[in-house]
Amino acid sequence: MSIVITNIRRTPREVAEQFAELGVATTHEASGRRGLMAPYMRPIYRPARIAGSAVTCELAPGDNWMLHVAVEQCEPGDVLVATPTSDCGDGYFGDLLASSLVARGVLALIIDAGVRDVAILTEMQFPVWSRTISARGTVKETLGNVNTTIVCAGARVQAGDLIVADDDGVAVVPRLDAETVLANAKRREENETEIRARLESGELGLDVYGMRGRLEAKGLRYVQSENQK
Amino acid sequence: MSIVITNIRRTPREVAEQFAELGVATTHEASGRRGLMAPYMRPIYRPARIAGSAVTCELAPGDNWMLHVAVEQCEPGDVLVATPTSDCGDGYFGDLLASSLVARGVLALIIDAGVRDVAILTEMQFPVWSRTISARGTVKETLGNVNTTIVCAGARVQAGDLIVADDDGVAVVPRLDAETVLANAKRREENETEIRARLESGELGLDVYGMRGRLEAKGLRYVQSENQK
Amino acid sequence: MSIVITNIRRTPREVAEQFAELGVATTHEASGRRGLMAPYMRPIYRPARIAGSAVTCELAPGDNWMLHVAVEQCEPGDVLVATPTSDCGDGYFGDLLASSLVARGVLALIIDAGVRDVAILTEMQFPVWSRTISARGTVKETLGNVNTTIVCAGARVQAGDLIVADDDGVAVVPRLDAETVLANAKRREENETEIRARLESGELGLDVYGMRGRLEAKGLRYVQSENQK
Amino acid sequence: MSIVITNIRRTPREVAEQFAELGVATTHEASGRRGLMAPYMRPIYRPARIAGSAVTCELAPGDNWMLHVAVEQCEPGDVLVATPTSDCGDGYFGDLLASSLVARGVLALIIDAGVRDVAILTEMQFPVWSRTISARGTVKETLGNVNTTIVCAGARVQAGDLIVADDDGVAVVPRLDAETVLANAKRREENETEIRARLESGELGLDVYGMRGRLEAKGLRYVQSENQK
Amino acid sequence: MSIVITNIRRTPREVAEQFAELGVATTHEASGRRGLMAPYMRPIYRPARIAGSAVTCELAPGDNWMLHVAVEQCEPGDVLVATPTSDCGDGYFGDLLASSLVARGVLALIIDAGVRDVAILTEMQFPVWSRTISARGTVKETLGNVNTTIVCAGARVQAGDLIVADDDGVAVVPRLDAETVLANAKRREENETEIRARLESGELGLDVYGMRGRLEAKGLRYVQSENQK
Amino acid sequence: MSIVITNIRRTPREVAEQFAELGVATTHEASGRRGLMAPYMRPIYRPARIAGSAVTCELAPGDNWMLHVAVEQCEPGDVLVATPTSDCGDGYFGDLLASSLVARGVLALIIDAGVRDVAILTEMQFPVWSRTISARGTVKETLGNVNTTIVCAGARVQAGDLIVADDDGVAVVPRLDAETVLANAKRREENETEIRARLESGELGLDVYGMRGRLEAKGLRYVQSENQK
Repeated sequence: MSIVITNIRRTPREVAEQFAELGVATTHEASGRRGLMAPYMRPIYRPARIAGSAVTCELAPGDNWMLHVAVEQCEPGDVLVATPTSDCGDGYFGDLLASSLVARGVLALIIDAGVRDVAILTEMQFPVWSRTISARGTVKETLGNVNTTIVCAGARVQAGDLIVADDDGVAVVPRLDAETVLANAKRREENETEIRARLESGELGLDVYGMRGRLEAKGLRYVQSENQK
Repeated sequence: MSIVITNIRRTPREVAEQFAELGVATTHEASGRRGLMAPYMRPIYRPARIAGSAVTCELAPGDNWMLHVAVEQCEPGDVLVATPTSDCGDGYFGDLLASSLVARGVLALIIDAGVRDVAILTEMQFPVWSRTISARGTVKETLGNVNTTIVCAGARVQAGDLIVADDDGVAVVPRLDAETVLANAKRREENETEIRARLESGELGLDVYGMRGRLEAKGLRYVQSENQK
Repeated sequence: MSIVITNIRRTPREVAEQFAELGVATTHEASGRRGLMAPYMRPIYRPARIAGSAVTCELAPGDNWMLHVAVEQCEPGDVLVATPTSDCGDGYFGDLLASSLVARGVLALIIDAGVRDVAILTEMQFPVWSRTISARGTVKETLGNVNTTIVCAGARVQAGDLIVADDDGVAVVPRLDAETVLANAKRREENETEIRARLESGELGLDVYGMRGRLEAKGLRYVQSENQK
Repeated sequence: MSIVITNIRRTPREVAEQFAELGVATTHEASGRRGLMAPYMRPIYRPARIAGSAVTCELAPGDNWMLHVAVEQCEPGDVLVATPTSDCGDGYFGDLLASSLVARGVLALIIDAGVRDVAILTEMQFPVWSRTISARGTVKETLGNVNTTIVCAGARVQAGDLIVADDDGVAVVPRLDAETVLANAKRREENETEIRARLESGELGLDVYGMRGRLEAKGLRYVQSENQK
Repeated sequence: MSIVITNIRRTPREVAEQFAELGVATTHEASGRRGLMAPYMRPIYRPARIAGSAVTCELAPGDNWMLHVAVEQCEPGDVLVATPTSDCGDGYFGDLLASSLVARGVLALIIDAGVRDVAILTEMQFPVWSRTISARGTVKETLGNVNTTIVCAGARVQAGDLIVADDDGVAVVPRLDAETVLANAKRREENETEIRARLESGELGLDVYGMRGRLEAKGLRYVQSENQK
Repeated sequence: MSIVITNIRRTPREVAEQFAELGVATTHEASGRRGLMAPYMRPIYRPARIAGSAVTCELAPGDNWMLHVAVEQCEPGDVLVATPTSDCGDGYFGDLLASSLVARGVLALIIDAGVRDVAILTEMQFPVWSRTISARGTVKETLGNVNTTIVCAGARVQAGDLIVADDDGVAVVPRLDAETVLANAKRREENETEIRARLESGELGLDVYGMRGRLEAKGLRYVQSENQK
């Protein structure tokens, strides 16, 4: 029952590259606040920011065998997204696998587990977003799957989906939604440019966003306290 | 039942500034070991160190509306201290709100929740101490309170209390105690200067602090082990 | 019942120094994947990498008195390894104790608890691996033990055992196994040099490690999906 | 963007009822070890065991408004499955909502959040599997969705999927797989009856399952230790 | 700096007893959703339900000495509320201290730490709400305070405040607010009686609470999905 | 490198049986407060209380193969103690393995991982202390060890050591210390009988234990507060 799907469709690379500029928070908002991985997924060094197509990998706990299988399915611009079938913080990935991914043009690893050799990975500037850092090694005994649909850190990932990751975390955009989300995100960015300028000049968000009336309608009251002595 | 208290009294700014030099550990000791927030409150970048008067903000979970209300109550030298009414790690705060706080001269945000845009906040050098980093956005539907007394990360904070934050965490000093604590802290620092010199020269703490008698009285014994072969 | 064992045997310093080069992941593999501390043990700054002989210290919760006793038992090249008898995240250790350890030539502190003054410790470049960072102070009321066998972050540590710590975590090697493990580790490193070169040149791990036959035997199948549209 | 899907297809009730007999562990094995919710999902009382079709509900953090909307979509034999869009342990559900679900013939609530009034729910024998128990109330300000696909406690749930829950946790079986999984599960149960009898009579699993050869081939050795004195 | 305050004012006992009937969830709602302890505070057996006046006790980590001091300050109808100055899960309390509290008419212990002898406490039917259960013992070396204001499991408690605890958790009502909250709570209960009857008869909350208009105004849409095949 | 040690020495059964009467808290105190497992180890039902000799089992994460190997090494009166080499909450153990252990006269399982079929295990009255309950299954691919020394939930366990477990948790007593600890424990129990009677009669611990002088010497003061109005 272990399979490797070999004919995945990817998010176009020129689309992905624009998301790297926009970052995770904007992508997440432009997706209707969906598809965010849990915040325990942290980059091993900062700053780091990438976007690319997911190659997915389902792993047995304490067993990194399928990562070697997944490498072969990767192409330049891909992001390898891996998750064990049950909670495991072992160090599934180190500098040797990273060398292999770099050789294939892979942009990053996203893994809901542990990673090791982080000092070398930092020197190599190969970014990893992981649940933890651990030197604990793994075995190569049990099969898993490559490019099947997985749940990674609480988010559903299909092979070919767009992965955006930066210092704020990791977002997933379904491949077929990527262009729509990109358009939303750009519109959002443009709006924010003007708002940012107004806020920087000292104007209040209450006025910029016109919130005062709705706050009052909901019952907000401004009072003086007698306790302040 | 949602209110904004507009007439708070602050810790004098010249007092606060001296605490920034002293740091959290010394402040905490000089306060009789009270008023420390839980250690999960971490700075988004290091080093960072500030001290100022608290403007407090109570938020609904997943809803950052009241942060916009709180901004208006802030003055130069203030520290915004925010907490949701129930556990929530969403990214309540990003670069737009930071621009607004910078424009008002606010020194930092302390939030028992999540924050996002941390790469930009780091570039801006606007420090935030938070429970987590998360890109997950919030809504603006539910009211809360500004400048009421809150419990943030296990510490009680009244508006105008002194907040001291650095790489070790966040301490709260009640406004009316600030000058007494400052005097204690300075006395402590002076003592430590001489002790540090003696320890650096190789003298033992056992002797510098005169601990040997009390250790012996409590029953400490020095032994040789036969297991060491 | 509180004792200080004064005649411990150490791992030879020239052996320890070679482990600092090899790092934790290699040490852990060369030890048969034993003796790793839990991954919550993190360095207070990065990069950091040391190896030396353990002086052990068992502490009461919220009480750092025995650290002062342990300092006297330390020699140049030692690593102080401390653990409270029950879970405690207080800041047991700060810049004064660090000054004392530096004066004695101690390489690092490993503590399954909290540490403070991390900004100063970072400036001093005195590395600490700890469970947490906390400004919360401790008292000096209750005795513990020095150089008895302890369990620290899930790993058993006898006085004189080799401690290896870097950005990946902390490993313990029993003193009497250190030379054997060193030989294994070096052999491993040599193998990896050639493998790394092959992987960097784009050869696949599947081929370098000769995995294809065993994967097929276990039942791995390569398929095309019709869902990919 | 908030929707309620009103025309969901359900897992046939006579199929679901057979799963309640089989329980979660067997269901999970018969599904190829997929679709299990995280083990923090616990029943509020034990023993409890149900199986039915999912009505899904996506909630805002700290806001239970959509539960009231979801109730209307429920039919006899359904299981309400609810998850907040970000981590929240508030008490979303109590005895009033339970009365409403009972009136509609709903079998249970599965919620990746908190629940309250557990003493009354226990008396009513209305089972709930939840992340936590909390008296903290919620508001009714923000919309969500009903019967869209959600991720609940790490498992993907589509409306109409089969939910099986007992003292071991909660499993999800895709609606279209339910009959196949049922057949597998029954076959499994039959096998186990004979095995159980042999094990109860004292025969060893090593022999019943014929494991000795494979263990030896992998390198397991039986030894006598000299340390045992 | 360690003190025992001996002249506290209590919440009237006839007021407290009525809260025991109402329970924590109702009390919490009637208090404006304030004063709830964190949900990790769980009863050692269920069902359990009490209400009484707080005697507070601040403890050193791993040290239960002050509990003995606090016992003397307790009167019939009191609830002892204890918290260590830093996180500690040790078993501070067992059957001997329970015997002492029972002899003084104390109703329960609330402790943000560990408790032991839970089998005996269950037989005695002396309820405890605690963070954890642990057999790990404590020492008697360090002083603390009795009847000063404390933060316990995130809630502020002043001596004499009303404590309400049941299977849902623990709530604190400031002494001076107790009668107002009681009146609110009773009004709430009365309303709920009618609502419960309507819900039990199958009427929908959407209609009972008149929510349909506001849901539509916020933008909720009822749709049919084509995915349901 | 995987071994099964077949000639372990056990704690005498008549010694072990007396510990079951005494329970974990008393055992732990009589052992000098050593050898307690972490408090996350909880019984799957309550009350439960056992004591016996440890057969140890080291498991791969997500792989329960070695449990089958360990069963063969068990004798009547034994307690099986198992731990994975890295954190894993999978359900390693269910009713079939329990049937096998019951057939061999094993008293309980202690496992720093997950267990399943808890409803059936409860009916069988076969007690398990575990980190979690999970239906998630395991594979049988990777070897481990039986009767080597392990660290389980933070406590070191050698084969043949005495395991005492009850509703308070799990304690380990080194085999060679068992008789000494038993004598201490009995002396302790006798002392407590008299103390309990005095406390039940209303005498204060402060007087029974003669604490007043030492409290005063440490600086405890009894005061009246003006805040109590």
